[in-house]
Amino acid sequence: MERKEISQAVISRLPRYYRYLGELRDDGVERISSQELSKKMQVTASQIRQDLNHFGGFGQQGYGYNVEYLYVEIAKILGLDQEHNLIVIGAGNLGQALLNYSNFSRRGFIFKGIFDHNPKLQGTKIGELEVRPMEEMSAFITKNNIDIAVLTIPKTGAVKVAEKLVECNIRAIWNFAHVDLHVPEWVQVENVHLSDSLMKLSYNSSRYQDIKNAK
Amino acid sequence: MERKEISQAVISRLPRYYRYLGELRDDGVERISSQELSKKMQVTASQIRQDLNHFGGFGQQGYGYNVEYLYVEIAKILGLDQEHNLIVIGAGNLGQALLNYSNFSRRGFIFKGIFDHNPKLQGTKIGELEVRPMEEMSAFITKNNIDIAVLTIPKTGAVKVAEKLVECNIRAIWNFAHVDLHVPEWVQVENVHLSDSLMKLSYNSSRYQDIKNAK
Repeated sequence: MERKEISQAVISRLPRYYRYLGELRDDGVERISSQELSKKMQVTASQIRQDLNHFGGFGQQGYGYNVEYLYVEIAKILGLDQEHNLIVIGAGNLGQALLNYSNFSRRGFIFKGIFDHNPKLQGTKIGELEVRPMEEMSAFITKNNIDIAVLTIPKTGAVKVAEKLVECNIRAIWNFAHVDLHVPEWVQVENVHLSDSLMKLSYNSSRYQDIKNAK
Repeated sequence: MERKEISQAVISRLPRYYRYLGELRDDGVERISSQELSKKMQVTASQIRQDLNHFGGFGQQGYGYNVEYLYVEIAKILGLDQEHNLIVIGAGNLGQALLNYSNFSRRGFIFKGIFDHNPKLQGTKIGELEVRPMEEMSAFITKNNIDIAVLTIPKTGAVKVAEKLVECNIRAIWNFAHVDLHVPEWVQVENVHLSDSLMKLSYNSSRYQDIKNAK
């Protein structure tokens, strides 16, 4: 399938389609038109058609989308038909929260290990996993075929750890550290900068008040 | 200052400017050209100029930006010159992680309360705050002038809680529940859908392998 030119904007919207289609499927819905989906998702029907056309267009004119089929196809596109092996680096609250979030494993994201440089945490159990020392990380990645590393450590340590991960040939980093990582192009990075998100919310909230007060 | 037409894309980039300028300031840098900033941030100098022009353009041709001034101005734009009072709803790992993250309070985001419907958690302490029952939420919001509610509960409960928050005249919801909230336009919502972010990473990682294998 040709899908070289898909923008990151479209990719960013796919998980949301996947979520809505999963809910429709769970509700026993078999078919949905782009108009109905549009109403539910509060995006235009034309955007839905355009987005889904990137993947070969699963809809039939006047007949709507087959929910199950589209759900499965988007899952494949997102790589959810394969299992992914993850490690978490940083056993603080955030690392624990991610590890304990059962939705990830249900979608094939399997947490295999958790690491922390704090000796007090090493050996303690989080869910079914024991916190390991950082020194064991490299060997663990190779041995357990880890493809995604989740970085939940402060920004001061994150750059060094990322360099180490690159040496270990990790393919993907899910980065919660508040710093931009510079890695080779074969390593994919997805940032979750929580402070940035909170500031954006703060802006939009202040801005709304300004507009209201000016009226 | 006229800033009605700023796109959410520009707004989304502002916290990143703020972060880099803060680091430059901490390093004692007084001035920086858009070219230098461009190299550091790995975006084009022209984008930097365009973005910052939305806010009146703080740079002077051939002279660069005054780091301290720009830092302070962006902080004002982002509403960081005012304090924000927050509550967290959901005292699980994620709620605890956010509450304990000291960077937020340093930027004026002050956590005033945390709520959970689980009686076992009520009364336990997280940082300096005691977990309160949900029944106290409405009165607490009014009494403590809360402007931002952080939702770290599963999606099943989130819609109902959001409705309650709207009744309490909350201005902003930072939503970690994996569901889209439909609220009146005067309530700002910023979503952090962690599963969506992980799926995007999974896509990009699989996709890169596909391209590599096809070569």
